[in-house]
Amino acid sequence: MNKPHQPAPSSPLLGHCPATLPAGAYYDPDHFARELKTIWARNWIYAGRAHDMTPMSMRRLTVAGDNLILVKDAQGAFTCFHNTCRHRGAELCATPEKRLKSKLISCPYHGWTYDLTGRLVRTPFVSMTADFRKEEHGLFDVAVMEWNGFVFVCLSDGPPEFSGVPDPAADGLNNWPMRDLVTGHVMVKEIACNWKIFWENYNECLHCPGIHPELSDMVPVYGRGYMAANEAPDWTPDTPPPAHGLKDGARTWSMTGALCGPPFSELTPEQLAAGSTFVTLLPTMFVVAHADYVRAVSLRPLGPERTELRAEFLFPPETLQAPGFDLDDVVSFATTVMLQDGEACEINQRGLRSSRYRHGTLMPQEFEVHRFHEWVRRHDQD
Amino acid sequence: MNKPHQPAPSSPLLGHCPATLPAGAYYDPDHFARELKTIWARNWIYAGRAHDMTPMSMRRLTVAGDNLILVKDAQGAFTCFHNTCRHRGAELCATPEKRLKSKLISCPYHGWTYDLTGRLVRTPFVSMTADFRKEEHGLFDVAVMEWNGFVFVCLSDGPPEFSGVPDPAADGLNNWPMRDLVTGHVMVKEIACNWKIFWENYNECLHCPGIHPELSDMVPVYGRGYMAANEAPDWTPDTPPPAHGLKDGARTWSMTGALCGPPFSELTPEQLAAGSTFVTLLPTMFVVAHADYVRAVSLRPLGPERTELRAEFLFPPETLQAPGFDLDDVVSFATTVMLQDGEACEINQRGLRSSRYRHGTLMPQEFEVHRFHEWVRRHDQD
Amino acid sequence: MNKPHQPAPSSPLLGHCPATLPAGAYYDPDHFARELKTIWARNWIYAGRAHDMTPMSMRRLTVAGDNLILVKDAQGAFTCFHNTCRHRGAELCATPEKRLKSKLISCPYHGWTYDLTGRLVRTPFVSMTADFRKEEHGLFDVAVMEWNGFVFVCLSDGPPEFSGVPDPAADGLNNWPMRDLVTGHVMVKEIACNWKIFWENYNECLHCPGIHPELSDMVPVYGRGYMAANEAPDWTPDTPPPAHGLKDGARTWSMTGALCGPPFSELTPEQLAAGSTFVTLLPTMFVVAHADYVRAVSLRPLGPERTELRAEFLFPPETLQAPGFDLDDVVSFATTVMLQDGEACEINQRGLRSSRYRHGTLMPQEFEVHRFHEWVRRHDQD
Repeated sequence: MNKPHQPAPSSPLLGHCPATLPAGAYYDPDHFARELKTIWARNWIYAGRAHDMTPMSMRRLTVAGDNLILVKDAQGAFTCFHNTCRHRGAELCATPEKRLKSKLISCPYHGWTYDLTGRLVRTPFVSMTADFRKEEHGLFDVAVMEWNGFVFVCLSDGPPEFSGVPDPAADGLNNWPMRDLVTGHVMVKEIACNWKIFWENYNECLHCPGIHPELSDMVPVYGRGYMAANEAPDWTPDTPPPAHGLKDGARTWSMTGALCGPPFSELTPEQLAAGSTFVTLLPTMFVVAHADYVRAVSLRPLGPERTELRAEFLFPPETLQAPGFDLDDVVSFATTVMLQDGEACEINQRGLRSSRYRHGTLMPQEFEVHRFHEWVRRHDQD
Repeated sequence: MNKPHQPAPSSPLLGHCPATLPAGAYYDPDHFARELKTIWARNWIYAGRAHDMTPMSMRRLTVAGDNLILVKDAQGAFTCFHNTCRHRGAELCATPEKRLKSKLISCPYHGWTYDLTGRLVRTPFVSMTADFRKEEHGLFDVAVMEWNGFVFVCLSDGPPEFSGVPDPAADGLNNWPMRDLVTGHVMVKEIACNWKIFWENYNECLHCPGIHPELSDMVPVYGRGYMAANEAPDWTPDTPPPAHGLKDGARTWSMTGALCGPPFSELTPEQLAAGSTFVTLLPTMFVVAHADYVRAVSLRPLGPERTELRAEFLFPPETLQAPGFDLDDVVSFATTVMLQDGEACEINQRGLRSSRYRHGTLMPQEFEVHRFHEWVRRHDQD
Repeated sequence: MNKPHQPAPSSPLLGHCPATLPAGAYYDPDHFARELKTIWARNWIYAGRAHDMTPMSMRRLTVAGDNLILVKDAQGAFTCFHNTCRHRGAELCATPEKRLKSKLISCPYHGWTYDLTGRLVRTPFVSMTADFRKEEHGLFDVAVMEWNGFVFVCLSDGPPEFSGVPDPAADGLNNWPMRDLVTGHVMVKEIACNWKIFWENYNECLHCPGIHPELSDMVPVYGRGYMAANEAPDWTPDTPPPAHGLKDGARTWSMTGALCGPPFSELTPEQLAAGSTFVTLLPTMFVVAHADYVRAVSLRPLGPERTELRAEFLFPPETLQAPGFDLDDVVSFATTVMLQDGEACEINQRGLRSSRYRHGTLMPQEFEVHRFHEWVRRHDQD
């Protein structure tokens, strides 16, 4: 559970109670296979922090069931290809990561060799015939893009404009030095639920009072089941906003509420006061930026009822190196919240397999869940 | 292998050798899925001993692939519901068992709360709209029934009359104090066979001489491959019945043949002499009552070729508490027989997957297997 | 990787670059199920060395998904049947191997008994009716054949002539005392690839320089990516053949190149010089005969992407018993090569699952791979 929104000028509550997606969308294997194609193969998918990959290396990556290689050259530029040799289909990178000894990608099976743009340059030991044209046997390439130090890939031949993918709040990260942050901690966890269950959980705070005692204490409005103050039934545009998103004395999301290092210098007083700034990048990840650190949470669908969750905690290098830096104070807080959400997601998944459950009913405060469902319905088209 | 019948007035042997069910009925996944709906979702299925569940608690239960909750109120009355919240489908009971703190069932995800009849009574933190009607969002309920201290549930909207389910011999348990018996031992074992293979094994004794040396010694007629004396080729209605179902000196099914406690006081001399009284409740369980204890054996289909077997050994409380009570003497005997049958069932299952095996052929003494097949053919209709 | 061919009178290289089989042929479950029927159930499949089975015993065997028994009588003759009793389908042999106490096969469930030709001879404890005819309930039999001490079975009612199955080089084994050899070592390994990937790897040596450093050192022509000298681009029929298939000083495929025992006495100077003689028996096995020992490698398809590899190392009994015999010198060499091939096969399998990979392209030197594909296309017909 994480809250994407700041108070909006008018009440965002739904005026009726719409149906959720049908039950089968969460466990039917055919439905899952279709979503891999319509949603996961057509959108930009998070592939890792640019920083975390060594220049002159490649890394194996699975996107929408496809085995890919992400390649970083000596200058730090990225390319991406299907991990399959054009000769007889062997994997080019047969290990999770591999250093490149030259500016070439060499197949471990018969030694076919490609340059870093995917062009076939050598077919060792072969007595070639005239009908073979090297230029027709280059690697299958995949679109790559960087944004704020995050690398994304897209399997589609016509990737969508990235500007349309992040939510309108994405500009909000402009005051954070995103490209300079380094990874201080990574959590990976497999949860037994459909990937959409994760996003539904993310998109509402009605569950906060029951599931997240620590978070509800840290962010008082969450303890009332709201994502923001304008969800209160007695809210009007004239209501003064609460002085602080966090409880008195707290300055960031950590066990103690204390900062783990100096606050980022370019943040506005509003950004400091908000305690958190969320950016959502469907279907692949969200980023939550605090006064002193940033957390990037991405997900990977492993099966109709299995999803891998990955959380990266990003810090300024100086913070990580400062004497007395307390990583655990930061990591424990968000990890506690994520594990609580993971368990809730699994409880939700197990229950909706009932033969009598056809669909659920959304509450007025689940307006972001509804917006997510609309996004899914719009994208899940052949 | 367990024998349901006492000598009948005429020979029960089949006059011909009918075919068994076709091979695919024992391993085809689609056939299995259909049987869950036509047989397991339409009949009364054993859910546990009433005694073994704490008042003011609920228990998770799987019937025909459906996730259910069985609820026992403070007065000991049972209700049963699909384990799915009407909000967004979360499990109401996310653990095998759960105590109820009040007369309410509360969803662990968003706190929707139902009374013990399934009525929705609370939706916490929600600012509700006018189109939502609580009375349309009650739990999906499931039929429940008690019989002789056993609890049964039925997923069907129109459950069959229970009187039609047990075999005509069911009245035979009337002389046993069934409701007062308590569980002294439970054995649970998964066997790698289709559920029908279990019932076929149960319904004939041709395998007894080869598979059950101890049982064939205890019940001499079994050692001749019969379930009862009237199966003998030289039997006529004038043949005097054998003086005792058990071998000389034995009084119950135990390793030593000795009783583990005082015999039940209401049994007739015939019931004492028979050594065992069987009641069969298709498709879910059988009960075998002895002079001093009762065993209830139930099964649960886990997959086309996987079945869970559960045996509960039931005793008068006084027997269990008596000094010198020898539980192992009772348990070892029936456990030995059940494990022998489990292994035979697995051998049968593995063999009938041959591409050449279309169906088997029943012998004249397999009249109860034939009757079981007729029952299956009658019920497995859309 | 193992090389089936000796220099041929003309260059065998392909004059063009044909497509491989389509990608789905290597992982689609329906395609795999069809190949079991069209290829594995219609051809002779290796069942084991005649020597390695005790007279008066039976052994469980899986061919094309079918559970069989291979039976060896007191005189050493073999019969084979489906491992399913005609009564209710139980396994006749419920363990990997079983001794026969008499000249009879007895079902462990109800004791139905068959003679070693499969005729039903006894149905114990049964009071039989007139409509049952024993002669209609014999075991389902399977064709069996011996060749060079190897036992083969064929599920088809009309097995192909065996003479058509081995390659034309099969006569080449005539100078080896095949029937007298005994098994000195067995290696079994499961590899994560389709069975055809194994055969493709076997049928070319372009991968040798990169994958097999030890083998390429032992057989110099392999180090150039050829299976035989006539693949060289500068080869003409007048080119003198190399004096020896193995490197100078080596006499067999072993770590040291030294023989492990006396060479077989009937080999021709050419056979001794060649270092290896290959015979390929599609789809089930290949045999490679050396100056001092023979290796038989068979495979069993376990699933679309799982194959079991079995290598048997065969020696004259005198060699095994000779003082100082060094089994490890022989076994390590071929095992190293087989494990290198196994890993290459797995790399190939993982890579061709890419959604963009439709088929590969064969190089001129992959003429035997092409021939294998033609064999598959010809046999994989309904």
